[in-house]
Parts: sequence; structure tokens; C-alpha cells
Amino acid sequence: MRAYNFCAGPAALPTAVLEKAQAEMLDWHGKGLSIMEMSHRSKDYVAVAEKAEADLRTLMNIPENYKVLFLQGGASLQFSAIPLNLLGKNNKADYIHTGIWSEKALKEAQRYGDINVVEAGIQIEGKHAISEQSQWNLSADAAYVHYADNETIGGLQFANIPETDKPLVCDFSSSILSAPLDVSKFGLIYAGAQKNIGPAGLTIVIVREDLLDQAKPEIPSILKYSAQAKNDSMVNTPATYAWYLSGLVFEWLLQNGGVDAIHQANLEKAKLLYGYIDSSDFYANPIYSANRSIMNVPFTLADAALEKQFLQEAEENRLLNLAGHRSVGGMRASIYNAVPLDGVQALVNFMDDFAKRHG
Amino acid sequence: MRAYNFCAGPAALPTAVLEKAQAEMLDWHGKGLSIMEMSHRSKDYVAVAEKAEADLRTLMNIPENYKVLFLQGGASLQFSAIPLNLLGKNNKADYIHTGIWSEKALKEAQRYGDINVVEAGIQIEGKHAISEQSQWNLSADAAYVHYADNETIGGLQFANIPETDKPLVCDFSSSILSAPLDVSKFGLIYAGAQKNIGPAGLTIVIVREDLLDQAKPEIPSILKYSAQAKNDSMVNTPATYAWYLSGLVFEWLLQNGGVDAIHQANLEKAKLLYGYIDSSDFYANPIYSANRSIMNVPFTLADAALEKQFLQEAEENRLLNLAGHRSVGGMRASIYNAVPLDGVQALVNFMDDFAKRHG
Repeated sequence: MRAYNFCAGPAALPTAVLEKAQAEMLDWHGKGLSIMEMSHRSKDYVAVAEKAEADLRTLMNIPENYKVLFLQGGASLQFSAIPLNLLGKNNKADYIHTGIWSEKALKEAQRYGDINVVEAGIQIEGKHAISEQSQWNLSADAAYVHYADNETIGGLQFANIPETDKPLVCDFSSSILSAPLDVSKFGLIYAGAQKNIGPAGLTIVIVREDLLDQAKPEIPSILKYSAQAKNDSMVNTPATYAWYLSGLVFEWLLQNGGVDAIHQANLEKAKLLYGYIDSSDFYANPIYSANRSIMNVPFTLADAALEKQFLQEAEENRLLNLAGHRSVGGMRASIYNAVPLDGVQALVNFMDDFAKRHG
Repeated sequence: MRAYNFCAGPAALPTAVLEKAQAEMLDWHGKGLSIMEMSHRSKDYVAVAEKAEADLRTLMNIPENYKVLFLQGGASLQFSAIPLNLLGKNNKADYIHTGIWSEKALKEAQRYGDINVVEAGIQIEGKHAISEQSQWNLSADAAYVHYADNETIGGLQFANIPETDKPLVCDFSSSILSAPLDVSKFGLIYAGAQKNIGPAGLTIVIVREDLLDQAKPEIPSILKYSAQAKNDSMVNTPATYAWYLSGLVFEWLLQNGGVDAIHQANLEKAKLLYGYIDSSDFYANPIYSANRSIMNVPFTLADAALEKQFLQEAEENRLLNLAGHRSVGGMRASIYNAVPLDGVQALVNFMDDFAKRHG
């Protein structure tokens, strides 16, 4: 029996997707071999890869002047690839700092260029929040402005897309495909696949074509966006199976109404969980309402000494991976696209029962 | 029905491994979730990752003073990572050039340091061969000596490990685990997984500990061997599913007698195929006997105009992916560990039948 999995990443995948992958594992479409045993340059595999890209373009309504790349190395390798590709001659960029992931991105960028760090984490009514853009000190000559839409560890999410005339670069690892997005407002969007897209080992980069050709000379060749764009992400062998599985997830999303529909479901899940937490004296969420993530919901117990018991009982109730990130502690429920409303309802029921017994 | 798959990579995997992965796809060991839905830092996943490393250490008899890394980006990213990690202060290395892959490695290295290219491709009796080491002009002050054990495209393999007092660095992408190897003779061994190990998207690096701490300052952080070694290849989220599948392949090898046993099987397969080709007037292999690859067997037809028909009929006989690399043409049968003797026998039978009808 499948459990409800609230892991922050690698994370839950749709059961229907795993069932399809399972059925096709030994013999893809009667061809006598697994999709993972195929050359990435074979006609069959290229069709799978191209359909995945086309479906993602449909789902996100990606304009034609953007390239979609299917790369390896995770968002963390993009922390290096982005400055190496985009800093250009000015060698300067703005990085908005809101938490642990945006900090990792800016620390890596500082190794390559002149980085203006904009501290945007503030407290409002004792809660973590993101400051208004009017309070940011952005550079006049930045090659780009970087931020992380959703801080997976902190559970802190931007309420709006920042306004800038510079190319906007955003880490959407934990929120891509969770809500409609105007891609045309960005220079580059990137996301590790292992939260809302597919298995770990694949990274999606969506980049505006005019930004492709300014890489630093020391960049490792396969990190060059221009080269990967020219070669359909096949400068070298890509992560073929992860790409295929991501394609199955895109199909699943399209079959279920696309991003608008999943967004409504995500809002409902978030409302249920935050609503319960807010109504409880036993649980608390540390984030200011406007900046609450609809994907990652950290919460604490009134008595931290009960955390171990909470996790153990949750697991006995088939509610898995609710521990907060090791750097912050507490609890965290990641309620990505593949986590159904039933799962969140089961979690709330368990939390309520636990609180009644211990509150 | 499973076909025989002679693809050069991504390549055939053992049917038993795919069956196990299929059975565990939705619910790994009764835990209620797929292994690809688990945090890489969970107790269950870490045990899987550690067992894969331990099994690889057993299979290859890897000495304790070597680190084993499970990375992303393929051998091609290592073409950059190796010079960035190992060139050191001298900034100089020797690269032995024997074909397309060793050339790609040296071209990337030339972007970072002073590379002495040793041309080792020669002709003997009209066949491609690798020259004796006595004819090489190696540097006195190279930080390392690089070569590719087996040129996947050319089908050209080293008969011996070169002798040097410098750290020896070798691309074993298409020959790792195909034959016993004295790891202690190397400074670093690397291999893309998608030939003899597992799915594309995973790269194995086996590196001697004393070589870890000399990376260039401009290296992207997650490419630093020292950092990956210190963090058990989890500086960031690794390709968890590919790592798990590779572990299943290692288990399969151990259950079937380890590297010695698979080496005997590989020799038998190679002997059957080369023996048939040599006995035929219709087929020819362009490699000098001492340097013939036991993994990749390129061959030509007496009449190149028949190639398309050969490939089509082979496919109708469930013998897949026999076209040579697009850069060289002709045919190529990759007979990696997972290709059984029965498959090679079926190929020889088909080749013989085809030759009789067209010779």
C-alpha cells in the first residue's frame, strides 16, 4: 500500500506515473527494451524527449524565444552555471537573499563576480516575511537579478514577481508547475526536477535566447547554455530515464487539467493545512501569511520534546517524512503537486488527534 | 519479449535487474513509496547508497585509500572536472590520444592547462592499433597522465595499463567491470554509468585520497572532489534512482561470480564474434588483434550499400542498435556485461545467414 509522502525532495510522484513507468520498464512500447537502454539519439528516444519538452511548453505557456534545457547536476550546479553564463562583461549581479537556498546561490555567485546581496528577509508581527521591493537596493548595472521563488526549507514564498528591467533569474525548484507563471517576465527559470517534476538527477533550465552567448571562458563546456541549446540538451548523454519520467509527469498534469487545475488543488491543500494550524494552540507556523509557501509548510509543536513521538506515530499512520530540514528542526509537510488532498486531510486528522492526546 | 540490444550506450541492462526495479517501483521494501521518492538523506536511502559503494569496492577490490564518488554530468563533465581538480600548480598533463573520446577529453583539458598530446594511434598491417609506450613522448613534470582504456566508437582498447610514476587517470566508461583491474595502479578512474553500470545520469569516480585537495579556484563547487568525498557524494542531491539501479547491477554481478566470471563470459562473447568476422569474407573488423575491444566490435560489410538492409533485417530478428557511431558509419555491436552469449550467438547466426544471401 502506498503511503502519503511529505518529503521535501526527492519527493512524491504521482502513483499513475509510477504505474506507467513500471508497466513499461522491461519493454517500452513493444520495442523489446527499456527506455533506459535506448540510445539518446535513437528515433524513439528523441520522440520521447521532444514530447516532454513540447508538453512542458504547453503547460507553462513558454514563449518561442525561450530555450528549454534538460540538464544534469541539480540546481546546485546551476548556482555555478548561471554566473558563468550570464555575468557578462560587467561581471555584476543582484541576488535577493530570503533563506538557505538563495544564500547558497549567492555564495557560489560570489566566487565568480561582483554580487550585490539584497537582504529581503524581515519580520512582520513576529513572523518571517519578505520585504517590499521598494526597500531593496538594486544595482543600476546588474547583468541580472536572482531570487528563489520558494524557500523550500523556510517555507517562505514570494507573493509577487519582482519588477525589474534587468533579466530576472529565478530558482523555481520547489514551486515550478505549482501555479500559473508568466515566463515572459524572466530571463531564466531553473528547477531541480526532484520536487515537482520527476526523479533527482535532472534540472530544467528555461532561458531567453538573447542571454545565451556570453559565457565566461573558464566555463566547463557542457555547462554552456549556448552549446546545450544548439544540441537539444544532448552535448553529451543526458539523464534519459529521468527525462522520460518527467515527460510522464507532464502528461499526467495535462490529463488532469494542467497548471490551473493543479494550482486550485494546491491552494485547497494549503488552505486546509494552514487553516488547521492557525486554528490550533498546539501547532504553529512561523511565516507571515502573505509569504506562506503553498508547497512547503513548516510547523512546530507546542512542546518540542514531543517531536520524536509525533514523527513515529505519523509514520505508523503511513504519513512519511515530516521532519523539518536538519538545519532548522521542527516539522515540515511538503505538499507538492503529487500529494493529494486526501493525504493532507489524513495529516490534519492525525495532527488533530495527536494534539488532543497531548495538548 | 525482450530483444537483444547492442546499443553502445545507454545500453542493455540485465533483465533480472530491470525485473527487480519493476517489482519495487511503487513500494520499496514495503515502505509505501518508491526509492526515487525518498530523501537522499533518509536512513533507508543512505543504506542503499552505502551498499552500492561497498559492493563496487568488493567487485573491483578498491583499496581503502581511494574514495568512490557517485556524481552527475557524465564522463563529459569529468573532462572538465579532472583538469580543474588535478592540474595543480604545474598546470601540465599528458593526454594519450587514441580516438574520439580521448580527443574530447584532451580538447577540454587544453582549455585549462598546458597539455602534452601523445599521438598513440598507429597502423599495423593496415589495422588501427595503439603504439608501444616506448614510442611516447611523456613529460617529466606532468601532474597526471590521461588515457581512455577503451575507445567506444573506434573499438580500440589498450592491451596493457601504461607504466608511469605520475598519477594515471583513465576513462573506463565503456570497459569498467568488464575485466579484473588493479585499481592501485591509478590515480583516478572514471566512468559514465550508461554502458556497463546502469542508467545514464550517473558517473563513477574512483580517486586516490592524496589527489583530492588541489582544485583550481574557478572550479564550480560541486565539481570539487574533496567536497564530494567529504560529503559522501551528497554535496547536493545525487541521482538517487540511477545510484540505486547501479547498486542492483553490482548485486547482480556479485551473484553471478563477480568480475572474474563476467570477464570469462566477455572473452567468450568476443571470441565468438571476432572469430566469425575473421572467418568471413563478407565482414571485416578494422582493429589490430592486440587492441581489439572486448566491449565494442565495429565491423563493415563487403558492400556498404547493403548496410541499411542489414540493419532493417537485424531489427526484424530482434537484434537492435547495430549501426556504427554517426561519425564513422559501418556497424558496431556493443557486447557489454548485460548482453548474454545467446545474444552474440543470435547475432552471428543472423550475420552468417545475411552473408550467404548477399555474399
